[in-house]
Amino acid sequence: MSGPSDPREPRLRQSPEFDLIGAIRERLASTLASSARRSSIRIGIGDDAAVVVPGAVTATSVDAIVDGVHFRSSWCPPRSVGRKALGAALSDLAAMGAAPGEAYVWLGAPPELSEASCLELCDGIAELAEQTGVAVLGGDLTAAGALSVCVTAVGHAGSESELVGRDGAEAGFALCVTGELGGAAAGLMLLEHPELRKEVGEPIAREAIRRQLEPEPRLASGRALAAAGASAMIDVSDGLGADAGQLAAASGLGVEIDLEKVPLAAGVREVAAASGRDHHELAAGGGEDYELLCAVPRSTLAECEGAVARSGSTLTEIGRFVAGGSVRLRLSGGRSLPPAGHDHRRAR
Amino acid sequence: MSGPSDPREPRLRQSPEFDLIGAIRERLASTLASSARRSSIRIGIGDDAAVVVPGAVTATSVDAIVDGVHFRSSWCPPRSVGRKALGAALSDLAAMGAAPGEAYVWLGAPPELSEASCLELCDGIAELAEQTGVAVLGGDLTAAGALSVCVTAVGHAGSESELVGRDGAEAGFALCVTGELGGAAAGLMLLEHPELRKEVGEPIAREAIRRQLEPEPRLASGRALAAAGASAMIDVSDGLGADAGQLAAASGLGVEIDLEKVPLAAGVREVAAASGRDHHELAAGGGEDYELLCAVPRSTLAECEGAVARSGSTLTEIGRFVAGGSVRLRLSGGRSLPPAGHDHRRAR
Repeated sequence: MSGPSDPREPRLRQSPEFDLIGAIRERLASTLASSARRSSIRIGIGDDAAVVVPGAVTATSVDAIVDGVHFRSSWCPPRSVGRKALGAALSDLAAMGAAPGEAYVWLGAPPELSEASCLELCDGIAELAEQTGVAVLGGDLTAAGALSVCVTAVGHAGSESELVGRDGAEAGFALCVTGELGGAAAGLMLLEHPELRKEVGEPIAREAIRRQLEPEPRLASGRALAAAGASAMIDVSDGLGADAGQLAAASGLGVEIDLEKVPLAAGVREVAAASGRDHHELAAGGGEDYELLCAVPRSTLAECEGAVARSGSTLTEIGRFVAGGSVRLRLSGGRSLPPAGHDHRRAR
Repeated sequence: MSGPSDPREPRLRQSPEFDLIGAIRERLASTLASSARRSSIRIGIGDDAAVVVPGAVTATSVDAIVDGVHFRSSWCPPRSVGRKALGAALSDLAAMGAAPGEAYVWLGAPPELSEASCLELCDGIAELAEQTGVAVLGGDLTAAGALSVCVTAVGHAGSESELVGRDGAEAGFALCVTGELGGAAAGLMLLEHPELRKEVGEPIAREAIRRQLEPEPRLASGRALAAAGASAMIDVSDGLGADAGQLAAASGLGVEIDLEKVPLAAGVREVAAASGRDHHELAAGGGEDYELLCAVPRSTLAECEGAVARSGSTLTEIGRFVAGGSVRLRLSGGRSLPPAGHDHRRAR
């Protein structure tokens, strides 16, 4: 792996644009062959626009990550930058229950980015695209002040009723979450304070860091939840409190979360202890876990749990939607945490 | 109009993210009402992804512009940044002959960008979206080192055969261009050397600067050309020589351009004279005119000219496709220009 500012690497500025673009295209061509919608792709990378035969309805989302805001290139290797950017965009499709189809990528390259790092970043995108059956069909490469990747992801469905929006909760519905939370926040803490790694131990540290660097979009769980009766859904990107608040607000409701019920990812307790933080705070405030948070009518709760289990994950009831507009993060003994998530516009 | 670094303006960092996003949504909501595909939009801004009932085929393109690379905020007001970003992405759809449908926008905001400038930029996007019938259905706002806008534009067609790709030229086909070239390059020169404005006169200067700041995607001409028999098409973004070369290469051909036949935009001769440049060089090398360049079989040339005229523009034959792979920019007397366009990865 080459770092983004290894002085021995050829610089992006030194080679003619079309050669580098040719090499990038080669890196991404593999995603055409492994695409789940291969037969519907008419024109891929290299024309003015990509041409596709879409499903009956499409779901489209945009997500961007920027060096110094969403990651630091000092601790995020180019391959992880690519995976993280695509993963965040696909996570939005997971939260709709859409089948992922195509991705379009803009890469903003700072002058110090080497060609090798640029291609490694594309390899990271291609790797996750292949795993998820997504075809990367176009994009743009320009100079930029800081390394930036903007991904537009397009998903498909056979009908509008297959998809789940954010509004659709009712008072009394269960608030449920897939998988475990806090891992990405714990990983971030370990990346920014490497001295904590020794305290928590290498296997735990590596797992938490993986959650931060290479989030996995919960595409199968999202489709399973949509089919099994989840009535509103969002992904956990800004933090449990903030995202649950948005989900509730979209239906004009409030939400109560029992923090003791939130499943904790590996390493969250250890990192919280080593850094003197509350583990509930890491799990509820950190964000970037890219798990799915959903509203489930009581009548379909068992079906949803079973469907998520068959998709390879778990579904845990962690709270309920209530009348009014407040977000309560409850601890035992009547205590509670403030519901703030983090704001991506503020640099870390 | 407020500049991006007016110290009296409230700063983007000072207000909570969701309020600014609310104001941006309000600015872009108008594009839903004026959308040409209004009835096909199921979920717009505010969910995890936008949901749309697409045409039988979709054409999707991505374009990004970055402060210091594609414009300078010292001479490009926020409204023009918005128009230029959307215009460049829509120009790719024009070059496919697609009917524009939706746009998705990422805005990378530097710390010094004021809220007013941010909203003015969105107004610029909304203005052009309304003019072209495009609905802005989603996006992302994050911090960034330099003001950056990345637009993904989606167009629709009733069948694949309605669209025109880049490959499809044959030796002997005419190379034609819509409208006039060189205006954007002349405008750029006037913006970077304001002392030339006096020499060329205000009306001419204003028109050339408008071409640089607010390019108009040739959507109607693109659809007219696709229907009338143009067999390959590209937009003039990198420069006539570079773009004609790409068009020819996509069909394994070369191309000869008679520079004396290239229609010159208002002000090109005057700015060239005032700056000691060759006017052919401005017209052939400058790029960013966002006119359409196409291959037309001789048998449909008259029909294509008529169709473009009915779309409100002109079509001019400026050269021909030839066997081999070379690009020749011919002047009278056997002279020629080198075919280089400009490279967007290099900062101006």
